[in-house]
Amino acid sequence: MPNPKAAILIIGDEILSGRTRDANMHYLAGELTRVGIDLKEVRVVADEAPAIIAAVNALRAVYAHVFTSGGIGPTHDDITADAVATAFGLELHVRDDARAILAAHYDRSGLAFNAARQRMARIPEGATLIENPISAAPGFSLENVHVMAGVPNIFQAMVASLLPRLGGGEPLLSQTLRIERGEGEIAEPLAGLAAEYADLSFGSYPFIQNGAYGSNIVIRGTDPTRLDAAISRLASLFPAGRT
Amino acid sequence: MPNPKAAILIIGDEILSGRTRDANMHYLAGELTRVGIDLKEVRVVADEAPAIIAAVNALRAVYAHVFTSGGIGPTHDDITADAVATAFGLELHVRDDARAILAAHYDRSGLAFNAARQRMARIPEGATLIENPISAAPGFSLENVHVMAGVPNIFQAMVASLLPRLGGGEPLLSQTLRIERGEGEIAEPLAGLAAEYADLSFGSYPFIQNGAYGSNIVIRGTDPTRLDAAISRLASLFPAGRT
Repeated sequence: MPNPKAAILIIGDEILSGRTRDANMHYLAGELTRVGIDLKEVRVVADEAPAIIAAVNALRAVYAHVFTSGGIGPTHDDITADAVATAFGLELHVRDDARAILAAHYDRSGLAFNAARQRMARIPEGATLIENPISAAPGFSLENVHVMAGVPNIFQAMVASLLPRLGGGEPLLSQTLRIERGEGEIAEPLAGLAAEYADLSFGSYPFIQNGAYGSNIVIRGTDPTRLDAAISRLASLFPAGRT
Repeated sequence: MPNPKAAILIIGDEILSGRTRDANMHYLAGELTRVGIDLKEVRVVADEAPAIIAAVNALRAVYAHVFTSGGIGPTHDDITADAVATAFGLELHVRDDARAILAAHYDRSGLAFNAARQRMARIPEGATLIENPISAAPGFSLENVHVMAGVPNIFQAMVASLLPRLGGGEPLLSQTLRIERGEGEIAEPLAGLAAEYADLSFGSYPFIQNGAYGSNIVIRGTDPTRLDAAISRLASLFPAGRT
Protein backbone atom coordinates (compact mmCIF):
# COMPACT_ATOMS: atom_id res chain seq x y z
CA MET A 1 0.00 0.00 0.00
CA PRO A 2 1.45 3.41 -0.88
CA ASN A 3 2.24 5.76 1.98
CA PRO A 4 -0.38 8.42 2.85
CA LYS A 5 0.36 11.81 1.26
CA ALA A 6 0.36 15.04 3.22
CA ALA A 7 0.71 18.81 2.99
CA ILE A 8 1.82 21.50 5.43
CA LEU A 9 0.18 24.93 5.56
CA ILE A 10 2.21 27.60 7.34
CA ILE A 11 0.28 30.72 8.29
CA GLY A 12 2.12 33.91 9.09
CA ASP A 13 3.00 37.34 7.75
CA GLU A 14 6.27 37.18 9.68
CA ILE A 15 7.53 34.34 7.46
CA LEU A 16 6.49 36.10 4.23
CA SER A 17 8.10 39.40 5.23
CA GLY A 18 11.42 37.66 5.91
CA ARG A 19 11.35 38.73 9.54
CA THR A 20 11.25 35.16 10.86
CA ARG A 21 12.83 32.10 9.30
CA ASP A 22 10.34 29.26 9.49
CA ALA A 23 11.58 26.19 11.37
CA ASN A 24 8.41 24.09 11.50
CA MET A 25 8.37 22.94 7.86
CA HIS A 26 11.81 21.39 8.11
CA TYR A 27 11.08 19.82 11.48
CA LEU A 28 7.77 18.24 10.45
CA ALA A 29 9.18 17.14 7.06
CA GLY A 30 11.75 15.03 8.90
CA GLU A 31 9.18 13.60 11.34
CA LEU A 32 6.77 12.66 8.55
CA THR A 33 9.53 10.86 6.62
CA ARG A 34 10.37 8.95 9.80
CA VAL A 35 6.81 7.66 10.27
CA GLY A 36 6.12 6.90 6.60
CA ILE A 37 3.89 9.81 5.60
CA ASP A 38 4.95 11.37 2.28
CA LEU A 39 5.04 15.17 2.40
CA LYS A 40 4.12 16.33 -1.12
CA GLU A 41 3.44 20.04 -0.78
CA VAL A 42 3.95 23.01 1.53
CA ARG A 43 2.21 26.36 1.31
CA VAL A 44 2.90 29.54 3.24
CA VAL A 45 0.10 32.12 3.32
CA ALA A 46 -0.55 35.44 5.06
CA ASP A 47 -2.68 36.00 8.17
CA GLU A 48 -5.69 36.68 5.93
CA ALA A 49 -8.88 34.65 6.16
CA PRO A 50 -9.55 34.23 2.41
CA ALA A 51 -6.01 32.97 1.80
CA ILE A 52 -6.19 30.48 4.69
CA ILE A 53 -9.66 29.23 3.76
CA ALA A 54 -8.72 28.71 0.10
CA ALA A 55 -5.52 26.86 0.98
CA VAL A 56 -7.20 24.62 3.58
CA ASN A 57 -9.92 23.64 1.15
CA ALA A 58 -7.54 23.05 -1.76
CA LEU A 59 -5.18 20.90 0.32
CA ARG A 60 -7.69 18.87 2.36
CA ALA A 61 -9.41 17.74 -0.84
CA VAL A 62 -6.17 16.28 -2.23
CA TYR A 63 -4.09 15.00 0.69
CA ALA A 64 -4.69 12.40 3.42
CA HIS A 65 -3.40 14.87 6.02
CA VAL A 66 -2.98 18.64 6.19
CA PHE A 67 -0.89 20.08 9.04
CA THR A 68 -1.19 23.78 9.83
CA SER A 69 1.25 25.91 11.81
CA GLY A 70 0.54 29.33 13.29
CA GLY A 71 -2.25 31.72 14.11
CA ILE A 72 -3.93 30.05 17.11
CA GLY A 73 -2.84 32.41 19.90
CA PRO A 74 -4.92 35.05 21.71
CA THR A 75 -4.19 38.17 19.59
CA HIS A 76 -6.29 39.80 16.88
CA ASP A 77 -4.08 38.39 14.11
CA ASP A 78 -4.68 34.80 15.30
CA ILE A 79 -7.45 33.80 12.91
CA THR A 80 -6.53 30.24 11.94
CA ALA A 81 -9.20 28.47 14.04
CA ASP A 82 -11.90 30.75 12.64
CA ALA A 83 -10.66 30.29 9.07
CA VAL A 84 -10.48 26.50 9.38
CA ALA A 85 -14.02 26.40 10.83
CA THR A 86 -15.23 28.56 7.93
CA ALA A 87 -13.47 26.27 5.44
CA PHE A 88 -15.54 23.38 6.82
CA GLY A 89 -18.75 25.44 7.00
CA LEU A 90 -18.78 25.25 10.80
CA GLU A 91 -19.23 27.87 13.50
CA LEU A 92 -16.74 28.39 16.24
CA HIS A 93 -17.69 28.63 19.93
CA VAL A 94 -15.87 28.24 23.22
CA ARG A 95 -15.84 24.51 23.92
CA ASP A 96 -16.12 23.32 27.52
CA ASP A 97 -13.26 20.79 27.48
CA ALA A 98 -10.80 23.29 25.99
CA ARG A 99 -12.01 25.98 28.40
CA ALA A 100 -11.43 23.66 31.37
CA ILE A 101 -7.86 22.89 30.26
CA LEU A 102 -7.07 26.59 29.91
CA ALA A 103 -8.82 27.58 33.15
CA ALA A 104 -6.78 25.01 35.09
CA HIS A 105 -3.55 26.22 33.47
CA TYR A 106 -4.14 29.89 34.30
CA ASP A 107 -5.35 28.98 37.75
CA ARG A 108 -2.07 27.12 38.43
CA SER A 109 0.04 29.94 37.00
CA GLY A 110 -1.87 32.72 38.79
CA LEU A 111 -2.62 34.61 35.54
CA ALA A 112 -5.99 36.10 34.65
CA PHE A 113 -8.10 33.90 32.36
CA ASN A 114 -9.28 36.99 30.49
CA ALA A 115 -11.32 37.37 27.29
CA ALA A 116 -8.28 37.18 25.01
CA ARG A 117 -7.16 33.91 26.58
CA GLN A 118 -10.70 32.50 26.49
CA ARG A 119 -10.60 32.98 22.70
CA MET A 120 -8.11 30.09 22.62
CA ALA A 121 -10.86 27.73 23.86
CA ARG A 122 -12.84 28.31 20.64
CA ILE A 123 -12.73 24.90 18.95
CA PRO A 124 -14.96 23.69 16.11
CA GLU A 125 -17.62 21.14 17.13
CA GLY A 126 -16.52 17.58 16.40
CA ALA A 127 -12.79 18.36 16.44
CA THR A 128 -10.36 16.27 18.50
CA LEU A 129 -8.02 18.29 20.72
CA ILE A 130 -4.23 18.12 20.25
CA GLU A 131 -2.47 18.32 23.60
CA ASN A 132 -0.18 21.29 24.30
CA PRO A 133 2.01 20.34 27.27
CA ILE A 134 3.87 23.67 27.16
CA SER A 135 1.32 26.47 27.24
CA ALA A 136 -1.98 24.48 27.53
CA ALA A 137 -3.91 26.14 24.65
CA PRO A 138 -4.78 23.09 22.56
CA GLY A 139 -4.55 22.50 18.84
CA PHE A 140 -7.19 20.40 17.14
CA SER A 141 -7.79 17.89 14.38
CA LEU A 142 -10.90 18.45 12.28
CA GLU A 143 -11.26 15.46 9.92
CA ASN A 144 -7.90 15.39 8.08
CA VAL A 145 -6.79 18.93 9.04
CA HIS A 146 -4.49 19.21 12.07
CA VAL A 147 -4.24 22.74 13.48
CA MET A 148 -1.14 23.52 15.55
CA ALA A 149 0.73 26.47 17.06
CA GLY A 150 3.50 28.36 15.27
CA VAL A 151 5.95 28.81 18.16
CA PRO A 152 8.50 26.09 17.34
CA ASN A 153 8.76 24.35 20.73
CA ILE A 154 4.97 24.24 21.10
CA PHE A 155 4.60 23.06 17.49
CA GLN A 156 7.07 20.25 18.11
CA ALA A 157 5.29 19.17 21.30
CA MET A 158 1.97 19.10 19.44
CA VAL A 159 3.49 17.04 16.61
CA ALA A 160 4.70 14.56 19.22
CA SER A 161 1.15 14.36 20.67
CA LEU A 162 -0.46 13.98 17.25
CA LEU A 163 1.68 11.67 15.11
CA PRO A 164 1.19 8.44 17.08
CA ARG A 165 -2.53 8.49 16.32
CA LEU A 166 -2.09 8.97 12.55
CA GLY A 167 -1.48 5.76 10.63
CA GLY A 168 1.76 6.06 8.68
CA GLY A 169 3.06 3.75 5.98
CA GLU A 170 6.47 2.15 5.55
CA PRO A 171 9.28 4.46 6.63
CA LEU A 172 11.10 5.99 3.68
CA LEU A 173 14.78 5.02 3.86
CA SER A 174 17.62 6.83 2.17
CA GLN A 175 21.28 6.36 1.42
CA THR A 176 23.61 9.11 0.28
CA LEU A 177 26.82 9.03 -1.74
CA ARG A 178 28.91 12.17 -1.88
CA ILE A 179 30.66 12.48 -5.23
CA GLU A 180 33.42 15.02 -5.69
CA ARG A 181 32.58 15.83 -9.29
CA GLY A 182 30.30 18.36 -10.94
CA GLU A 183 26.76 17.25 -11.75
CA GLY A 184 27.58 17.57 -15.44
CA GLU A 185 30.02 14.65 -15.14
CA ILE A 186 27.59 12.52 -13.15
CA ALA A 187 24.35 13.14 -15.00
CA GLU A 188 24.49 10.50 -17.74
CA PRO A 189 25.50 7.42 -15.72
CA LEU A 190 23.12 8.51 -12.94
CA ALA A 191 20.17 8.70 -15.33
CA GLY A 192 20.99 5.17 -16.52
CA LEU A 193 21.05 3.82 -12.97
CA ALA A 194 17.80 5.63 -12.07
CA ALA A 195 16.10 3.98 -15.06
CA GLU A 196 17.40 0.55 -14.01
CA TYR A 197 16.16 1.00 -10.40
CA ALA A 198 12.82 2.57 -11.27
CA ASP A 199 11.30 1.50 -7.92
CA LEU A 200 13.69 3.88 -6.10
CA SER A 201 13.96 7.66 -6.35
CA PHE A 202 17.30 9.28 -7.21
CA GLY A 203 18.03 12.88 -6.28
CA SER A 204 21.15 14.88 -7.07
CA TYR A 205 21.93 17.82 -4.74
CA PRO A 206 24.88 19.83 -5.96
CA PHE A 207 27.21 21.82 -3.77
CA ILE A 208 30.29 23.98 -4.10
CA GLN A 209 32.95 23.51 -1.45
CA ASN A 210 36.28 25.34 -1.45
CA GLY A 211 35.60 26.27 -5.05
CA ALA A 212 35.17 22.65 -6.18
CA TYR A 213 31.89 21.22 -7.46
CA GLY A 214 30.38 18.07 -6.06
CA SER A 215 27.02 16.48 -5.52
CA ASN A 216 25.26 14.39 -2.91
CA ILE A 217 23.32 11.63 -4.61
CA VAL A 218 20.43 10.50 -2.42
CA ILE A 219 18.61 7.26 -3.22
CA ARG A 220 15.28 6.75 -1.46
CA GLY A 221 12.91 3.81 -1.13
CA THR A 222 11.26 1.48 1.34
CA ASP A 223 13.20 -1.75 0.55
CA PRO A 224 16.62 -1.77 2.27
CA THR A 225 17.98 -4.58 0.05
CA ARG A 226 17.24 -2.65 -3.13
CA LEU A 227 18.75 0.49 -1.62
CA ASP A 228 21.95 -1.37 -0.74
CA ALA A 229 22.20 -2.78 -4.25
CA ALA A 230 21.68 0.61 -5.90
CA ILE A 231 24.14 2.50 -3.71
CA SER A 232 26.78 -0.19 -4.34
CA ARG A 233 26.28 0.12 -8.09
CA LEU A 234 26.55 3.90 -7.80
CA ALA A 235 29.75 3.61 -5.77
CA SER A 236 31.23 1.30 -8.41
CA LEU A 237 30.45 3.88 -11.11
CA PHE A 238 32.27 6.59 -9.10
CA PRO A 239 34.96 4.68 -7.17
CA ALA A 240 36.46 7.69 -5.41
CA GLY A 241 33.04 9.02 -4.49
CA ARG A 242 32.19 7.50 -1.14
CA THR A 243 33.21 9.51 1.89
CA MET B 1 -0.24 52.61 -5.86
CA PRO B 2 -0.17 49.34 -3.94
CA ASN B 3 3.02 47.30 -4.07
CA PRO B 4 3.20 44.45 -6.61
CA LYS B 5 2.36 41.05 -5.10
CA ALA B 6 4.53 37.99 -5.56
CA ALA B 7 4.85 34.27 -4.86
CA ILE B 8 7.80 31.91 -4.51
CA LEU B 9 7.71 28.33 -5.82
CA ILE B 10 10.39 26.05 -4.37
CA ILE B 11 10.92 22.82 -6.28
CA GLY B 12 12.66 19.92 -4.63
CA ASP B 13 12.09 16.51 -3.06
CA GLU B 14 15.03 17.16 -0.75
CA ILE B 15 13.11 19.94 1.02
CA LEU B 16 9.93 17.85 1.37
CA SER B 17 11.79 14.83 2.75
CA GLY B 18 13.40 16.97 5.44
CA ARG B 19 16.88 16.17 4.14
CA THR B 20 17.67 19.80 3.30
CA ARG B 21 16.45 22.88 5.11
CA ASP B 22 15.43 25.46 2.53
CA ALA B 23 17.26 28.76 2.76
CA ASN B 24 16.04 30.51 -0.38
CA MET B 25 12.53 31.39 0.82
CA HIS B 26 13.80 33.32 3.80
CA TYR B 27 16.52 35.05 1.78
CA LEU B 28 14.21 36.17 -1.03
CA ALA B 29 11.45 37.16 1.41
CA GLY B 30 13.83 39.67 2.97
CA GLU B 31 15.04 40.99 -0.39
CA LEU B 32 11.48 41.46 -1.69
CA THR B 33 10.48 43.40 1.42
CA ARG B 34 13.52 45.62 0.91
CA VAL B 35 12.56 46.54 -2.67
CA GLY B 36 8.82 46.94 -2.04
CA ILE B 37 7.41 43.74 -3.54
CA ASP B 38 4.87 42.05 -1.23
CA LEU B 39 5.43 38.31 -0.89
CA LYS B 40 1.97 36.80 -0.38
CA GLU B 41 2.44 33.06 -0.87
CA VAL B 42 5.09 30.36 -1.00
CA ARG B 43 4.63 26.83 -2.29
CA VAL B 44 7.03 23.90 -2.11
CA VAL B 45 6.38 21.04 -4.54
CA ALA B 46 8.15 17.80 -5.53
CA ASP B 47 10.35 17.24 -8.59
CA GLU B 48 7.28 16.08 -10.53
CA ALA B 49 6.15 17.76 -13.74
CA PRO B 50 2.38 17.81 -13.03
CA ALA B 51 2.92 19.41 -9.60
CA ILE B 52 5.28 22.07 -11.01
CA ILE B 53 3.04 22.86 -13.99
CA ALA B 54 -0.08 23.19 -11.83
CA ALA B 55 1.66 25.45 -9.32
CA VAL B 56 3.24 27.69 -11.99
CA ASN B 57 -0.10 28.17 -13.73
CA ALA B 58 -2.01 28.80 -10.49
CA LEU B 59 0.51 31.35 -9.22
CA ARG B 60 1.30 33.24 -12.43
CA ALA B 61 -2.40 33.93 -12.96
CA VAL B 62 -2.71 35.65 -9.56
CA TYR B 63 0.60 37.37 -8.77
CA ALA B 64 2.64 40.06 -10.53
CA HIS B 65 5.79 37.96 -10.07
CA VAL B 66 6.50 34.28 -9.46
CA PHE B 67 10.04 33.31 -8.43
CA THR B 68 11.08 29.65 -8.72
CA SER B 69 14.01 27.95 -7.02
CA GLY B 70 15.52 24.60 -7.95
CA GLY B 71 15.57 21.97 -10.68
CA ILE B 72 17.58 23.69 -13.44
CA GLY B 73 20.81 21.68 -13.28
CA PRO B 74 22.05 18.97 -15.65
CA THR B 75 20.69 15.82 -13.98
CA HIS B 76 17.62 13.74 -14.84
CA ASP B 77 15.65 15.15 -11.89
CA ASP B 78 16.14 18.74 -13.14
CA ILE B 79 12.82 19.26 -14.90
CA THR B 80 11.86 22.82 -13.97
CA ALA B 81 12.67 24.43 -17.34
CA ASP B 82 10.66 21.76 -19.18
CA ALA B 83 7.75 22.09 -16.76
CA VAL B 84 7.68 25.90 -17.00
CA ALA B 85 7.76 25.72 -20.81
CA THR B 86 4.88 23.22 -20.73
CA ALA B 87 2.93 25.49 -18.36
CA PHE B 88 3.18 28.23 -21.01
CA GLY B 89 2.43 25.84 -23.91
CA LEU B 90 5.93 26.33 -25.31
CA GLU B 91 8.56 23.87 -26.52
CA LEU B 92 12.06 23.85 -25.15
CA HIS B 93 15.16 23.78 -27.33
CA VAL B 94 18.83 24.61 -26.89
CA ARG B 95 19.08 28.35 -27.38
CA ASP B 96 22.20 29.77 -29.04
CA ASP B 97 22.88 32.58 -26.57
CA ALA B 98 22.64 30.28 -23.54
CA ARG B 99 24.74 27.66 -25.34
CA ALA B 100 27.46 30.24 -26.06
CA ILE B 101 27.60 31.32 -22.38
CA LEU B 102 27.97 27.72 -21.24
CA ALA B 103 30.47 26.78 -23.98
CA ALA B 104 32.71 29.70 -23.00
CA HIS B 105 32.47 28.75 -19.31
CA TYR B 106 33.44 25.11 -19.86
CA ASP B 107 36.14 26.13 -22.33
CA ARG B 108 37.72 28.38 -19.67
CA SER B 109 37.46 25.73 -16.99
CA GLY B 110 38.74 22.87 -19.18
CA LEU B 111 35.66 20.70 -18.56
CA ALA B 112 33.81 18.78 -21.25
CA PHE B 113 30.69 20.55 -22.57
CA ASN B 114 28.87 17.21 -22.75
CA ALA B 115 25.23 16.38 -23.47
CA ALA B 116 24.16 16.71 -19.81
CA ARG B 117 25.64 20.21 -19.59
CA GLN B 118 24.16 21.22 -22.93
CA ARG B 119 20.72 20.46 -21.42
CA MET B 120 21.22 23.60 -19.31
CA ALA B 121 21.13 25.71 -22.50
CA ARG B 122 17.50 24.68 -23.12
CA ILE B 123 15.59 27.94 -22.66
CA PRO B 124 12.04 28.70 -23.80
CA GLU B 125 11.77 31.01 -26.84
CA GLY B 126 11.10 34.58 -25.82
CA ALA B 127 12.53 34.24 -22.33
CA THR B 128 15.07 36.72 -20.94
CA LEU B 129 18.19 35.14 -19.42
CA ILE B 130 19.08 35.71 -15.76
CA GLU B 131 22.82 35.95 -15.30
CA ASN B 132 24.60 33.33 -13.20
CA PRO B 133 28.03 34.72 -12.32
CA ILE B 134 28.95 31.62 -10.31
CA SER B 135 28.43 28.57 -12.50
CA ALA B 136 27.33 30.19 -15.80
CA ALA B 137 24.16 28.12 -16.43
CA PRO B 138 21.56 30.89 -16.71
CA GLY B 139 18.13 31.21 -15.21
CA PHE B 140 15.39 32.89 -17.21
CA SER B 141 12.32 35.11 -16.95
CA LEU B 142 9.34 34.06 -19.04
CA GLU B 143 6.70 36.80 -18.76
CA ASN B 144 6.17 37.10 -14.97
CA VAL B 145 7.83 33.78 -14.01
CA HIS B 146 11.49 33.99 -12.94
CA VAL B 147 13.28 30.62 -12.96
CA MET B 148 16.39 30.35 -10.77
CA ALA B 149 18.76 27.74 -9.36
CA GLY B 150 18.28 26.02 -5.99
CA VAL B 151 21.88 26.08 -4.73
CA PRO B 152 21.73 29.00 -2.27
CA ASN B 153 24.77 31.00 -3.37
CA ILE B 154 23.77 30.71 -7.04
CA PHE B 155 20.16 31.58 -6.16
CA GLN B 156 21.31 34.68 -4.31
CA ALA B 157 23.52 35.79 -7.19
CA MET B 158 20.61 35.36 -9.63
CA VAL B 159 18.30 37.36 -7.33
CA ALA B 160 20.88 40.15 -7.35
CA SER B 161 20.93 40.07 -11.18
CA LEU B 162 17.16 39.99 -11.47
CA LEU B 163 15.68 42.36 -8.87
CA PRO B 164 16.96 45.66 -10.29
CA ARG B 165 14.95 45.13 -13.48
CA LEU B 166 11.67 44.44 -11.67
CA GLY B 167 9.75 47.52 -10.65
CA GLY B 168 9.13 47.44 -6.93
CA GLY B 169 6.83 49.66 -4.95
CA GLU B 170 7.44 51.59 -1.76
CA PRO B 171 9.69 49.68 0.64
CA LEU B 172 7.76 48.15 3.51
CA LEU B 173 9.08 49.56 6.79
CA SER B 174 8.71 47.96 10.18
CA GLN B 175 9.23 48.77 13.83
CA THR B 176 9.31 46.22 16.62
CA LEU B 177 8.53 46.50 20.31
CA ARG B 178 9.48 43.64 22.55
CA ILE B 179 7.01 43.24 25.41
CA GLU B 180 7.85 41.00 28.33
CA ARG B 181 4.30 39.83 28.92
CA GLY B 182 2.28 36.93 27.57
CA GLU B 183 0.15 37.57 24.50
CA GLY B 184 -2.96 37.07 26.60
CA GLU B 185 -2.14 40.27 28.55
CA ILE B 186 -1.40 42.26 25.40
CA ALA B 187 -4.18 41.13 23.12
CA GLU B 188 -6.98 43.55 24.04
CA PRO B 189 -5.09 46.89 24.01
CA LEU B 190 -3.24 45.75 20.88
CA ALA B 191 -6.46 45.03 19.00
CA GLY B 192 -7.68 48.53 19.90
CA LEU B 193 -4.51 50.15 18.60
CA ALA B 194 -4.61 48.07 15.39
CA ALA B 195 -8.17 49.27 14.74
CA GLU B 196 -7.12 52.88 15.31
CA TYR B 197 -4.15 52.60 12.89
CA ALA B 198 -5.94 50.58 10.22
CA ASP B 199 -3.48 51.71 7.51
CA LEU B 200 -0.69 49.79 9.28
CA SER B 201 -0.41 46.06 9.92
CA PHE B 202 0.15 44.78 13.46
CA GLY B 203 1.67 41.37 14.08
CA SER B 204 2.26 39.68 17.42
CA TYR B 205 5.01 37.03 17.54
CA PRO B 206 5.13 35.26 20.88
CA PHE B 207 8.23 33.73 22.39
CA ILE B 208 9.24 31.90 25.54
CA GLN B 209 12.59 32.86 27.01
CA ASN B 210 13.97 31.43 30.23
CA GLY B 211 10.50 30.15 30.97
CA ALA B 212 8.89 33.59 30.70
CA TYR B 213 6.36 34.57 28.04
CA GLY B 214 6.80 37.61 25.88
CA SER B 215 5.93 38.87 22.43
CA ASN B 216 7.50 40.94 19.70
CA ILE B 217 4.93 43.32 18.30
CA VAL B 218 5.83 44.29 14.73
CA ILE B 219 4.10 47.23 13.08
CA ARG B 220 4.50 47.49 9.31
CA GLY B 221 3.66 50.15 6.76
CA THR B 222 5.12 52.46 4.16
CA ASP B 223 4.71 55.80 5.98
CA PRO B 224 7.49 56.36 8.54
CA THR B 225 5.60 59.11 10.36
CA ARG B 226 2.58 56.89 10.98
CA LEU B 227 4.87 54.06 12.10
CA ASP B 228 6.61 56.35 14.60
CA ALA B 229 3.26 57.48 15.99
CA ALA B 230 1.93 53.95 16.36
CA ILE B 231 5.03 52.53 18.02
CA SER B 232 5.07 55.46 20.48
CA ARG B 233 1.45 54.78 21.39
CA LEU B 234 2.22 51.10 21.84
CA ALA B 235 5.21 51.90 24.06
CA SER B 236 3.02 54.16 26.19
CA LEU B 237 0.51 51.31 26.66
CA PHE B 238 3.32 49.00 27.84
CA PRO B 239 5.84 51.33 29.50
CA ALA B 240 8.36 48.65 30.49
CA GLY B 241 8.15 47.01 27.10
CA ARG B 242 10.84 48.64 25.01
CA THR B 243 14.25 46.97 25.05
